[in-house]
Amino acid sequence: MKKILVIHGPNLNLLGDRENEIYGKTTLDDINNEMKSLAGQLGAEIDFYQSNIEGEIVNAVQNARGKFDALVINPGGYTHYSVAIRDAISAVKVPTVEVHLSNIHAREEFRQKSVISPVTKGQIIGFGKESYMLAVRAAVSLLS
Amino acid sequence: MKKILVIHGPNLNLLGDRENEIYGKTTLDDINNEMKSLAGQLGAEIDFYQSNIEGEIVNAVQNARGKFDALVINPGGYTHYSVAIRDAISAVKVPTVEVHLSNIHAREEFRQKSVISPVTKGQIIGFGKESYMLAVRAAVSLLS
Amino acid sequence: MKKILVIHGPNLNLLGDRENEIYGKTTLDDINNEMKSLAGQLGAEIDFYQSNIEGEIVNAVQNARGKFDALVINPGGYTHYSVAIRDAISAVKVPTVEVHLSNIHAREEFRQKSVISPVTKGQIIGFGKESYMLAVRAAVSLLS
Amino acid sequence: MKKILVIHGPNLNLLGDRENEIYGKTTLDDINNEMKSLAGQLGAEIDFYQSNIEGEIVNAVQNARGKFDALVINPGGYTHYSVAIRDAISAVKVPTVEVHLSNIHAREEFRQKSVISPVTKGQIIGFGKESYMLAVRAAVSLLS
Amino acid sequence: MKKILVIHGPNLNLLGDRENEIYGKTTLDDINNEMKSLAGQLGAEIDFYQSNIEGEIVNAVQNARGKFDALVINPGGYTHYSVAIRDAISAVKVPTVEVHLSNIHAREEFRQKSVISPVTKGQIIGFGKESYMLAVRAAVSLLS
Amino acid sequence: MKKILVIHGPNLNLLGDRENEIYGKTTLDDINNEMKSLAGQLGAEIDFYQSNIEGEIVNAVQNARGKFDALVINPGGYTHYSVAIRDAISAVKVPTVEVHLSNIHAREEFRQKSVISPVTKGQIIGFGKESYMLAVRAAVSLLS
Amino acid sequence: MKKILVIHGPNLNLLGDRENEIYGKTTLDDINNEMKSLAGQLGAEIDFYQSNIEGEIVNAVQNARGKFDALVINPGGYTHYSVAIRDAISAVKVPTVEVHLSNIHAREEFRQKSVISPVTKGQIIGFGKESYMLAVRAAVSLLS
Amino acid sequence: MKKILVIHGPNLNLLGDRENEIYGKTTLDDINNEMKSLAGQLGAEIDFYQSNIEGEIVNAVQNARGKFDALVINPGGYTHYSVAIRDAISAVKVPTVEVHLSNIHAREEFRQKSVISPVTKGQIIGFGKESYMLAVRAAVSLLS
Amino acid sequence: MKKILVIHGPNLNLLGDRENEIYGKTTLDDINNEMKSLAGQLGAEIDFYQSNIEGEIVNAVQNARGKFDALVINPGGYTHYSVAIRDAISAVKVPTVEVHLSNIHAREEFRQKSVISPVTKGQIIGFGKESYMLAVRAAVSLLS
Amino acid sequence: MKKILVIHGPNLNLLGDRENEIYGKTTLDDINNEMKSLAGQLGAEIDFYQSNIEGEIVNAVQNARGKFDALVINPGGYTHYSVAIRDAISAVKVPTVEVHLSNIHAREEFRQKSVISPVTKGQIIGFGKESYMLAVRAAVSLLS
Amino acid sequence: MKKILVIHGPNLNLLGDRENEIYGKTTLDDINNEMKSLAGQLGAEIDFYQSNIEGEIVNAVQNARGKFDALVINPGGYTHYSVAIRDAISAVKVPTVEVHLSNIHAREEFRQKSVISPVTKGQIIGFGKESYMLAVRAAVSLLS
Amino acid sequence: MKKILVIHGPNLNLLGDRENEIYGKTTLDDINNEMKSLAGQLGAEIDFYQSNIEGEIVNAVQNARGKFDALVINPGGYTHYSVAIRDAISAVKVPTVEVHLSNIHAREEFRQKSVISPVTKGQIIGFGKESYMLAVRAAVSLLS
Repeated sequence: MKKILVIHGPNLNLLGDRENEIYGKTTLDDINNEMKSLAGQLGAEIDFYQSNIEGEIVNAVQNARGKFDALVINPGGYTHYSVAIRDAISAVKVPTVEVHLSNIHAREEFRQKSVISPVTKGQIIGFGKESYMLAVRAAVSLLS
Repeated sequence: MKKILVIHGPNLNLLGDRENEIYGKTTLDDINNEMKSLAGQLGAEIDFYQSNIEGEIVNAVQNARGKFDALVINPGGYTHYSVAIRDAISAVKVPTVEVHLSNIHAREEFRQKSVISPVTKGQIIGFGKESYMLAVRAAVSLLS
Repeated sequence: MKKILVIHGPNLNLLGDRENEIYGKTTLDDINNEMKSLAGQLGAEIDFYQSNIEGEIVNAVQNARGKFDALVINPGGYTHYSVAIRDAISAVKVPTVEVHLSNIHAREEFRQKSVISPVTKGQIIGFGKESYMLAVRAAVSLLS
Repeated sequence: MKKILVIHGPNLNLLGDRENEIYGKTTLDDINNEMKSLAGQLGAEIDFYQSNIEGEIVNAVQNARGKFDALVINPGGYTHYSVAIRDAISAVKVPTVEVHLSNIHAREEFRQKSVISPVTKGQIIGFGKESYMLAVRAAVSLLS
Repeated sequence: MKKILVIHGPNLNLLGDRENEIYGKTTLDDINNEMKSLAGQLGAEIDFYQSNIEGEIVNAVQNARGKFDALVINPGGYTHYSVAIRDAISAVKVPTVEVHLSNIHAREEFRQKSVISPVTKGQIIGFGKESYMLAVRAAVSLLS
Repeated sequence: MKKILVIHGPNLNLLGDRENEIYGKTTLDDINNEMKSLAGQLGAEIDFYQSNIEGEIVNAVQNARGKFDALVINPGGYTHYSVAIRDAISAVKVPTVEVHLSNIHAREEFRQKSVISPVTKGQIIGFGKESYMLAVRAAVSLLS
Repeated sequence: MKKILVIHGPNLNLLGDRENEIYGKTTLDDINNEMKSLAGQLGAEIDFYQSNIEGEIVNAVQNARGKFDALVINPGGYTHYSVAIRDAISAVKVPTVEVHLSNIHAREEFRQKSVISPVTKGQIIGFGKESYMLAVRAAVSLLS
Repeated sequence: MKKILVIHGPNLNLLGDRENEIYGKTTLDDINNEMKSLAGQLGAEIDFYQSNIEGEIVNAVQNARGKFDALVINPGGYTHYSVAIRDAISAVKVPTVEVHLSNIHAREEFRQKSVISPVTKGQIIGFGKESYMLAVRAAVSLLS
Repeated sequence: MKKILVIHGPNLNLLGDRENEIYGKTTLDDINNEMKSLAGQLGAEIDFYQSNIEGEIVNAVQNARGKFDALVINPGGYTHYSVAIRDAISAVKVPTVEVHLSNIHAREEFRQKSVISPVTKGQIIGFGKESYMLAVRAAVSLLS
Repeated sequence: MKKILVIHGPNLNLLGDRENEIYGKTTLDDINNEMKSLAGQLGAEIDFYQSNIEGEIVNAVQNARGKFDALVINPGGYTHYSVAIRDAISAVKVPTVEVHLSNIHAREEFRQKSVISPVTKGQIIGFGKESYMLAVRAAVSLLS
Repeated sequence: MKKILVIHGPNLNLLGDRENEIYGKTTLDDINNEMKSLAGQLGAEIDFYQSNIEGEIVNAVQNARGKFDALVINPGGYTHYSVAIRDAISAVKVPTVEVHLSNIHAREEFRQKSVISPVTKGQIIGFGKESYMLAVRAAVSLLS
Repeated sequence: MKKILVIHGPNLNLLGDRENEIYGKTTLDDINNEMKSLAGQLGAEIDFYQSNIEGEIVNAVQNARGKFDALVINPGGYTHYSVAIRDAISAVKVPTVEVHLSNIHAREEFRQKSVISPVTKGQIIGFGKESYMLAVRAAVSLLS
């Protein structure tokens, strides 16, 4: 059975009470549960990790080698500058789907550049929590 | 029953023989058929349009008003400069999903800027023909 | 009797229902009629053309040679990149007035650069439908 | 009866002998007289002010509050950097029409950016002295 | 007893009625009085100057030499381009505190660069009228 | 026998009366005839296409597949932004020679960047109608 | 009683021996003690946190919700790129004062841009340890 | 007898005590006297003007028409942004020599661009008070 | 006996299996052992530290004060943005050698800028594991 | 009989063994001989010069005055910065054809800007040794 | 007796026949003779050197050490990029005057940046051959 | 026995008296002798070349083919613009080590970009004469 690791970057632990007008009221646990259920339907196992610390996300990506078949990552604020996370993804060679809840191209200029995107398979951006569900499907499809 | 219009921009009619190393051998008709089947499963109607002419795409977007509940658009080469298509999407106020087959962030610099993205709900980028399937799902989810 | 051709670019056919908060409820026909009436008062004939297709606007500009004494053009979204329309205006040497309904300098950064302006006589920007009336007066004054 | 204040920026007092090949031989007094006559026809009162000193133009804009219903301003060389004049216009909230005699978009690069435009209602550019007449009409139309 | 000169730049004389949503309803006189009272408590004398004219502010800075021990300056719109004021501050070598009422880093791009800052001791930005009170304290602390 | 398609972009249909000081008095038909004659001498067949519409040029490039052995293209104003034409040339894989009548590097800044050049074999720029003759020779030499 | 959290970013634990010519000899404990005393005088409670790890600062900002009424933060080197800290401040909606010891506008170019400033109430820059005292006053004033 | 007007811009009245390490101890009067003596030797009359106010310098340039045969100007801080002074010089068509005491190309980046230079005959930069003497000679030579 | 601390940044723990085509098959332990042996020959002691967490590297640099005579650092992905690490190196004033395995100037544009370099003594770039050996020699030579 | 001078810039003497994958195996002598033969057919004399030294190329251009009727130049690496060669071409007023073997627009960014192009008649780029043959024809056609 | 070396850069040997509309008909020998005569009057010896080769100019600058008391240099086209000449001037520490015949600030953009200026004492620009005479005077005055 | 050629660029012949505060008092001969001795210890032959002329350095690089196994080059001022030297290194395919005496990343902005680096194996920067010794070791290690 294929295994997927979902990595949530900084401040995503606040989902549900942070800037509700942008991200809605669903909490990160709600989303994780919905992904778990969807993964089950699609015949995949899924696990979750959240950290606010860039280097711990690097650790998590490195540890995914040999344990997971695909990564789903929302790098949060680190999207725009973390060459360290980029290099980790590039090094472990686990196929990766990048996710963003909000349409970053309709926000501040600096949010429109992702240093992570070039080393991912693809990106899903702007569909709120549905972005994660589409990403699980994308990950599963990458593995088949 | 919800109705979705899929708009394919310039050169997508060549799919299946164009730059296969990037886009695979599936033709546009194959993709359209697969989308039709998926839309049926999801309880939505779907229609398709392709043109190489920027202004005809503007026309198609305008004509979607009142006839379709959501747009899925792959603006092809027009992605990077067509303010005319952007303005059309912005004017008709039909929720729109932007699709790209290849990971545009791993290609030339100029492909990494979309003038269309800010007026769409979200983007799905880099999953080959699967990008279109995810986009149909995204469109359906936007309407529910 | 002097003859003026008014060319409306992409999406201006939607006037009256598009983004009303910016452009008001007047339709393009309303504006054309008001221009016709004003032109009559000023002793000029006037004709109208609208297209969403860049190259058709190029055609219209080219066809104005020998038939019209002045052009009034609102290039819409093509304002910001259409070297083809610019070259057409520059080639036919018919004096041209550029018009914009909204104050493009109070909108997005990319709307503040017009590649058309350098080959026109002048620009009238930001007065809603009144921009067109002022442009007709400007065109008539260019011809006297 | 509506009242309009026309503010002429630096070096416009030289009109008529300055760079005739660009601006023609009409003096500033000629233009003011023609505007006065036109305002009369349109049922408006009009007054004029010229200064070469940026801060005095700020003063003039401030003093217009409560005394004038609209401003017509040609900021001359200050067009391109005077945040002070911009802030004054923005503060007094009197509707303002920006005027330029020559087509600034066909001159040096630095003349193509106006820091004033974003806080005005609109701009009229490039029609020689006729720019001022169109501006008076624009101002009157803003007030009706 | 230490003496402080507070210099208010262009449009600050409008405080209390200008753009109240940004700056509040307090007038410049209210602020000056509150600063005077605070300075008294801190054992310092204080004087005030306002002008809309860049060069008069240069004069005021120059005249402060030998008469004042510190400057508090809100350069208003001149913040972003006045090398003349910068050079005056640099020349007179009176320690200077730069003040802004609003958080200029949350406004337009061009407001985020101050040509004055490099020659001041420090800046206090974004606390409304309280910015001035903090600046008086900063000035007094610079002198002790 | 090798077959070459020559594609003329927007406004080239005006050749002979457009901006004669730059392009000379020869018409497009004159140039086409001269190319035909030259192609005959070189043992090649040649055909011609002109359009002002970007998407029709895309169509023409696509249709050249299997029918022509080489393309000669003067993209006119589209040179500087048409990713759609670029993608078409790149997709059909027919060797392509880019032609410009005038020395675009001695004209406006924006004319000095061609988005088409990177997907062509080479460029011939600045020799007036002779540019086309050299391009026919270049195309023939590419095919031998 | 109002509660303030002061967050010191990377390398501020070295204060007192680091680059003395810029920051003086006072240690971070000295500064904290002086702030504590001042807060007491102003009727506020105050607490302190220092970390060299970006993500721990994100954690500290998040934990301040519901526990503190205002933040005072010196983001140190993270000032210039930490979107993660910016997003945390923006999410918790606790009013925040940004502090810098040295006049960052008189140092290297890259130090003059703060990605944190747009989400803070205001900034106090350049007054050495006094910057912190002014920030405590600013924080208290924000809460009254 | 030829007449030269020397215009000193902002802060030059401080010469002799301002930033001595850069400009030396000579006062502006000393320099003016030395220029007067030199002009006499060269058979020219000379007059002097100093102002800190940009618009007054515009006035002075305008008033030089018909009264002076050449201008020598040190625009001080206005060098880098005063389009108003540039336009005045360009309008009056009196040949102008630009002077700077210090080598502006060895100072801050922003001092290395002069908006005045393109409309002057030439520039003399970096020789301290000797720059003025060379400028007087240059002006005299322009008139012979 | 002189003591050197070698700090390995993010993802360097993967050496030996990461992107072998670029970095070779040697593991980090292999390299450390070889450095240890070389240091011994050169009469120096050497110690090693690796972390994926930016702030822990800041801690390690700070802790080197008083314990080590020189630093050798490969900042990995943090090379390009970590002002925090830069400030730590600058603060502790321990002479530092920057090392990169691959020739960063032959890779992506963003890898060609190091924010660390200006505060180091020097850099050794592109010689694979040999870079570290040269760096140990460089560090020893700095101390003699 | 018309005379043409062909100038080969730096490293072109290596042709035939340098980077064969880009330039082919033909040596510079082969190319020169083929040009000589072609020139003979076209009724022109031709001479050749190669140097790796920028200033010697300047000398060669200068010496062409009065001796040659046209220049063909491949400036090699000097293409991108040699204002000295540009000025020489501009000064001698001998019509010049610029040649490049490879398609510089499909190589590194810095190769896409030629400082030489604006002062040449035209450019022929990307056709390997055939570029030189086309250039000889272009030169001959310039002279007839 | 003080000795001055005048170094003329590339293409200055053509003076008198090059681009007469810009530089006049005087030859370089004429100018040298006039400088020699002037130097004699001012009690200085003078010598001249011209080369089109950047590195020979470097040699000439190096050789001036110990033999000349001042340099006058017109770096011609090398002005805009020759770090080698800049470094030579900076190394030999002979005071240097930079000269340009034409007003480089009224010509192409790229001519407005001199990499030489920061290491010279000053610049004299735009006075034709008179620039050299003023430079000799400047050099003499630097030595007294 | 392996052979290394060391190429010293412009102004390095002045070493020992040039800008001693940056480069120390050692002459180029001292450095060459120390390199020779080191090369001997490492079992390699070594030769030296110095020139101030860019094209002669190109010649020297070209001549190294077949005669030397590795190059060590300090391109001096040519580092920042010499595409000619870059192309020579790239053409001859002799492995090359780039050397700089000073830490170019702690000097002027323009010194921080090397056009040479991308075609070298690696760079050694900032260790004074020790840079050369490390480079000899690097070169030897490249060859083993």
